[in-house]
Amino acid sequence: MDNTTSTQILLASRPAGWPSEENFEVRTVELPAMADGQVRVRNEFISVDPYMRGRMNDTRSYVAPYQIGERIAGGAVGRVVASAAQQLPVGTLVTHQHGWSDTVQAAAETFTPVPEIPGVPSSLRLHMMGMTGLTAWVGLTVVAGMKEGDTVFISGAAGAVGTAAGQIARLLGAKRVIGSAGSPEKVELLTQKYGYDAAFNYKDGDVAGQLAAMAPEGIDVFFDNVGGEHLEAALGAFNDGGRAALCGAISSYNTTQAPVGPRNMANLITRGLKLQGFTLSNYLQHAPEFGQRMGQWFTEGKIAYDETIVDGIENTVEAFIAMMQGANTGKMLVRI
Amino acid sequence: MDNTTSTQILLASRPAGWPSEENFEVRTVELPAMADGQVRVRNEFISVDPYMRGRMNDTRSYVAPYQIGERIAGGAVGRVVASAAQQLPVGTLVTHQHGWSDTVQAAAETFTPVPEIPGVPSSLRLHMMGMTGLTAWVGLTVVAGMKEGDTVFISGAAGAVGTAAGQIARLLGAKRVIGSAGSPEKVELLTQKYGYDAAFNYKDGDVAGQLAAMAPEGIDVFFDNVGGEHLEAALGAFNDGGRAALCGAISSYNTTQAPVGPRNMANLITRGLKLQGFTLSNYLQHAPEFGQRMGQWFTEGKIAYDETIVDGIENTVEAFIAMMQGANTGKMLVRI
Repeated sequence: MDNTTSTQILLASRPAGWPSEENFEVRTVELPAMADGQVRVRNEFISVDPYMRGRMNDTRSYVAPYQIGERIAGGAVGRVVASAAQQLPVGTLVTHQHGWSDTVQAAAETFTPVPEIPGVPSSLRLHMMGMTGLTAWVGLTVVAGMKEGDTVFISGAAGAVGTAAGQIARLLGAKRVIGSAGSPEKVELLTQKYGYDAAFNYKDGDVAGQLAAMAPEGIDVFFDNVGGEHLEAALGAFNDGGRAALCGAISSYNTTQAPVGPRNMANLITRGLKLQGFTLSNYLQHAPEFGQRMGQWFTEGKIAYDETIVDGIENTVEAFIAMMQGANTGKMLVRI
Repeated sequence: MDNTTSTQILLASRPAGWPSEENFEVRTVELPAMADGQVRVRNEFISVDPYMRGRMNDTRSYVAPYQIGERIAGGAVGRVVASAAQQLPVGTLVTHQHGWSDTVQAAAETFTPVPEIPGVPSSLRLHMMGMTGLTAWVGLTVVAGMKEGDTVFISGAAGAVGTAAGQIARLLGAKRVIGSAGSPEKVELLTQKYGYDAAFNYKDGDVAGQLAAMAPEGIDVFFDNVGGEHLEAALGAFNDGGRAALCGAISSYNTTQAPVGPRNMANLITRGLKLQGFTLSNYLQHAPEFGQRMGQWFTEGKIAYDETIVDGIENTVEAFIAMMQGANTGKMLVRI
């Protein structure tokens, strides 16, 4: 394995609508000599996530847009292969945000060493045991204030955040967990593997009607990864005092048309509802509690997961687009 | 004055769209002999409020719909003219929820005695010193979590709740208070009398553009009485971490068309926004603190107010419709 070069994927132009290979450039560079305090990390897995689509636009958002010619930053997990920093010796498993490249060399402070737990593959640091799981935890427990006995609806439930959120809701004592997904196979997986009480295929249409049929007593908490029609359906199904954690709106990320807003916003008043959008960066202080709880659940064998893996850094853009189209079940990852 | 009869206004049929006189019936009844524990109250003022429109529909809401043939319930202030209850002697000033009638006779427990404060007319118990003021207080401080230094936008700012909310925001140390209203005269009143830093006429159109021009540094808190285009404008103007207290949606109350939802809901996620609908019934525990603060401000001469008064119980429906059309400045009241 040649660790003296780094193959990286850069943003070449801003996508309008769906991204394509032409919006990206694959470049291989020689890595410079190691400077004092640096480490070189060979990635094992890199993450492709919906939020990255937002950063490809040049619009105001919670994180700065990617710049043209810049490497796509994001989560990755790898192992130190060369070290000029005492605190991160060769062989250390680390996570970082350097993103789409096979090998990365940078200051040791930009990497976080993670303990190696028997039975926990390193890839899980990019989903169930990482930011994805923490997003699900924060959205349910902090943002939506989920309580034991709540009926919980999760949109995009077969995705990385959704599979985490459903299981967490179940483990925290939800009365009923309902999910939506985009294929019959995913719908079956939700009830068979992920502990959902009911699930439906939103591509069958009439999201509001399907949700109402599966939540005859209404819903208390909505964890939204999709937006659009799903949000309107949830507003119609909410019980008094319902709370929504708005995590994603993947239905609108690749459209160039103005989305249609929910027509039943007045329900917020009559039913005393709360809608709160969130991004993980403001909630990182909850990571220790999450790590403790999720680690415990893992050890007890209570957490299922799926990974959809694409091999090779050169196939990262393909994996990213496939993920946006819903080709993944569970977490979409690129294996280096 | 004849206090042995009661003239009352009943719901005769459910309005579709704008209500008209035909939807109501005026009826005069002989009052029965006083039973033990009852009082008879001659109203001084009765209240007409936007939320009453919602109760005229037969749809799920936070309070039960009015029934056909039932007196329109709502806030009123009056004086005990006959008493068979020791705790409420003749002459006591009381507020109650018996609504649209000139004289009412009922169990003493359904009336609340209120202290008479020199310089505070009894009508203020129906707005600045009553439920209206408390609604403004709760929406700003509890629901939206307004803090000193926030820029606050209030829609329908020249109405009863709006004139209270603007002054409370100012007194609590808002950096900037911006209001919308429906006529040039109201807009001028907001800046001249109610301490608004800027105000605009939403009937001039382009609510988002007008708001953006008046809030060049964005808004932190939105107190919404109007809904629709105002909500979309606020979502576009919010700074990160913005909070909206959704109190009313008068723009949609009398339309039979499905309202258009805000097309920029994704801002909730990217800016970490919170939208919370509320109705006062869940926040009555804040009444003592509000009463103390508002009483103090009144005593210090810091609270301005307007009343639009219509005389005569028989003109109540006219007053109600005029209020829905924005004919009032400040609180619309019917004087008995």
